[in-house]
Amino acid sequence: MTAHAPAILRPSRDAVAAVIAQLVARFGAEASTAQAARDQHSHGEGLYAVGLPDVVVWPQTNEDVAFILALCDAHRVPVVPFGAGSSLEGQLPALAGGVSIDMARFDRILEVNPDSMDCRVQAGVTREALNAHIRDSGLFFPVDPGANASLGGMAATRASGTNAVRYGTMRENVLGLTIVTPQGEIVRTGSRARKSSTGLDLTHLYVGSEGTLGVITEVALKLYGQPESVVAAVCPFPDLERAVGAVVVALQSGLKPARIELLDEMQVRASNLYSGLTLAETPTLFLEFHGSPTVTAQEVASMQAIAADHGGGDFAFADRPEDRTRLWKARHNSYQATMALRPGAANMGTDACVPIAALPECLLACQRDVKETGLIVTIVGHVGDGNFHLGIVYDPADAEETARAEGLAFRTARRAIALGGTASGEHGVGMHKIAHMQAEHGPGVALMKRLKAALDPNAIMNPGKMYPD
Amino acid sequence: MTAHAPAILRPSRDAVAAVIAQLVARFGAEASTAQAARDQHSHGEGLYAVGLPDVVVWPQTNEDVAFILALCDAHRVPVVPFGAGSSLEGQLPALAGGVSIDMARFDRILEVNPDSMDCRVQAGVTREALNAHIRDSGLFFPVDPGANASLGGMAATRASGTNAVRYGTMRENVLGLTIVTPQGEIVRTGSRARKSSTGLDLTHLYVGSEGTLGVITEVALKLYGQPESVVAAVCPFPDLERAVGAVVVALQSGLKPARIELLDEMQVRASNLYSGLTLAETPTLFLEFHGSPTVTAQEVASMQAIAADHGGGDFAFADRPEDRTRLWKARHNSYQATMALRPGAANMGTDACVPIAALPECLLACQRDVKETGLIVTIVGHVGDGNFHLGIVYDPADAEETARAEGLAFRTARRAIALGGTASGEHGVGMHKIAHMQAEHGPGVALMKRLKAALDPNAIMNPGKMYPD
Repeated sequence: MTAHAPAILRPSRDAVAAVIAQLVARFGAEASTAQAARDQHSHGEGLYAVGLPDVVVWPQTNEDVAFILALCDAHRVPVVPFGAGSSLEGQLPALAGGVSIDMARFDRILEVNPDSMDCRVQAGVTREALNAHIRDSGLFFPVDPGANASLGGMAATRASGTNAVRYGTMRENVLGLTIVTPQGEIVRTGSRARKSSTGLDLTHLYVGSEGTLGVITEVALKLYGQPESVVAAVCPFPDLERAVGAVVVALQSGLKPARIELLDEMQVRASNLYSGLTLAETPTLFLEFHGSPTVTAQEVASMQAIAADHGGGDFAFADRPEDRTRLWKARHNSYQATMALRPGAANMGTDACVPIAALPECLLACQRDVKETGLIVTIVGHVGDGNFHLGIVYDPADAEETARAEGLAFRTARRAIALGGTASGEHGVGMHKIAHMQAEHGPGVALMKRLKAALDPNAIMNPGKMYPD
Repeated sequence: MTAHAPAILRPSRDAVAAVIAQLVARFGAEASTAQAARDQHSHGEGLYAVGLPDVVVWPQTNEDVAFILALCDAHRVPVVPFGAGSSLEGQLPALAGGVSIDMARFDRILEVNPDSMDCRVQAGVTREALNAHIRDSGLFFPVDPGANASLGGMAATRASGTNAVRYGTMRENVLGLTIVTPQGEIVRTGSRARKSSTGLDLTHLYVGSEGTLGVITEVALKLYGQPESVVAAVCPFPDLERAVGAVVVALQSGLKPARIELLDEMQVRASNLYSGLTLAETPTLFLEFHGSPTVTAQEVASMQAIAADHGGGDFAFADRPEDRTRLWKARHNSYQATMALRPGAANMGTDACVPIAALPECLLACQRDVKETGLIVTIVGHVGDGNFHLGIVYDPADAEETARAEGLAFRTARRAIALGGTASGEHGVGMHKIAHMQAEHGPGVALMKRLKAALDPNAIMNPGKMYPD
């Protein structure tokens, strides 16, 4: 990773001092240089990586953010936007110090339009807060990464989750944004129309830009009607190959499950232990179907037939809402469950995503690699998207083991790229996937850097992330 | 329009001569300065607008395109990419002369992957050619603008058509591109994975860029399984308001029709005359449902109930494939049918798109405006997307009538923008929608121009289009 990380210039001490003075003058106690605040904003989740900001600020309005960015741009002081702090790839460390902008006060739901099934929220609103707010309207927002992330952060990392196979990722569900450029301009992108062909697609340029082009302050989202019928079930398989084979056939036959998630036997064991499930320790699919009762009944029947063809066992249905919640909560906590397999250990998560037909080959190659590496590894995947995560359990204090884990993670990403896929299906690049950018995007990297230089010529936005040297 | 169009510098005669000499040296007869070729490449369809290129060239490889662009960039000679020539908003006139790059020889389907349901085609392949090629595989590509456009052109204008309500537009269906930058770099964007969170989204930056950032030479697309059951029907309504009301309720209730198209009574009359339909001259929905027989039967029943609630008449089903083909061919020919209402007249098409709940208000305001304007106007719409077209029949030789038509078109676009929508749902900006860019995008326009300047610093790509002064 180090070899690919860009060189970063630290700002001068005078510049930082000048910025802090002006931030304190405008924001008072909402700008803090306290060690605790700086520590808290020095990292996300996931792999160990830390960078202390010099100051943390909690703006409340677009104009506040514009003030901060214009100030930092004038003084060439770095800025790191900070949402819920749940990103996994090292998006948040302030590698050159500077200002961490915490968007927690951007917590207002600005409008909900049930008739057109859309909404507009401030960037700090979390996905769970939005869903709690709209529950009574009969609508929901489907994109669900494991953490209760902020919607601005989810847009910034082009996040997805378990529902993407049916509802798409943030890429498909953001209608528009309000962004603040590094120069302090406030720009509203997109519209509320479901489609538009006017002008360059600024919305999608900022979705997935990981805070490197400016700050996302508002997000307009598509909403969906709560399905009339929800059927959830788990289905055990004798091996990984047949579990994935069933998924591939289901998708090719046109089934549109809302969720189709794979847990390998190690992940099932981890989730049994951590979340109190009582599943047989064998590769298992977690499934959910949405629609009218007729439609879900038909899709379940089709899926049962396909599963049986692949040696799958009986479906165990989670009929009561609380059973479904327990099931999906366990799925969402699989990252923590993996870590808990070995007290004190860390979890190096991979995020490979490949074309669906390449998934069996990719997963089986990873499984062989895991065996040779000799580490404890869980496999859990949004297999309907061709996306899966290895949870590589390792001791960060053990250099040799860490190197073995890194080797496995590296090969997993490159295997996905070689199969026409991507190093990161939903976690972004941050610091930890920089090493794969050139392999995946080739000359596209130079183009991305030209765009970055055009929009952030002083390179203040989230330095050291995404763009390799 | 003129007030908003950017000033364009013509290249020097020497520069043009030098470019022509090198093109003829490399491409022989595939580079032509013949008047007929230049005429043919001086315009698209739609409103009258002409700009003669100095030379037309038919490259066959990415390297050919790279050679042409690097050459033109070095000599500051403008370039206009040309697909099937069917764009409607004045994307194609060579306003400052220069080189028209005709992509007709990029006609190869490079790969079809039935297992992962995707394909990769050269940019000149038309949507009909692709669908003919893959028909036996059980797959199809759903995006269907009226014309048999090239897939590169459809990507460049972010096109859609009648199927977008279920399958999305080009924005949702392009997995990746090969583009050639104005400097002659060949860049492959995206991957074959269904989702990715690595790096800036170059694919979506180029989708909809209308040839202003480079040339799209290859397009990777999602494909879909041909539906097991297809049910098509037409349903008459007593008035526009109730027809649209039925659509809004259907979408809000979660129905996912493949097509839901509105024709007002004038468009029904036009299509009866032009395409030999025999429909009652009243606002009418053209509907199509895709799925399993159970699903389509259920969706049809739900839609019938909703239609009846809104005063809709009985469904007339088009059961035989040839009946369906005739119906949708008539729908696709509505543009020509409108023009045929008055021999010698032209059709000024609008392309407003609004949030679905705003559609009734927007359409009824347009209908009142049409009445006051006193022109013959058809209304036809992809109403499931909130998108509709006025077909304003006018005589381009009559200045007063042209001004009246332009006023109506202008107000229609601004009405959509005021309702949270867009001036152009699927036809792009070209020359004719430039006047609305600032109103729709505000400070976003300046951002677009910075991106344009970063990627095309010598401003050779399709000058005079999209970006207002």
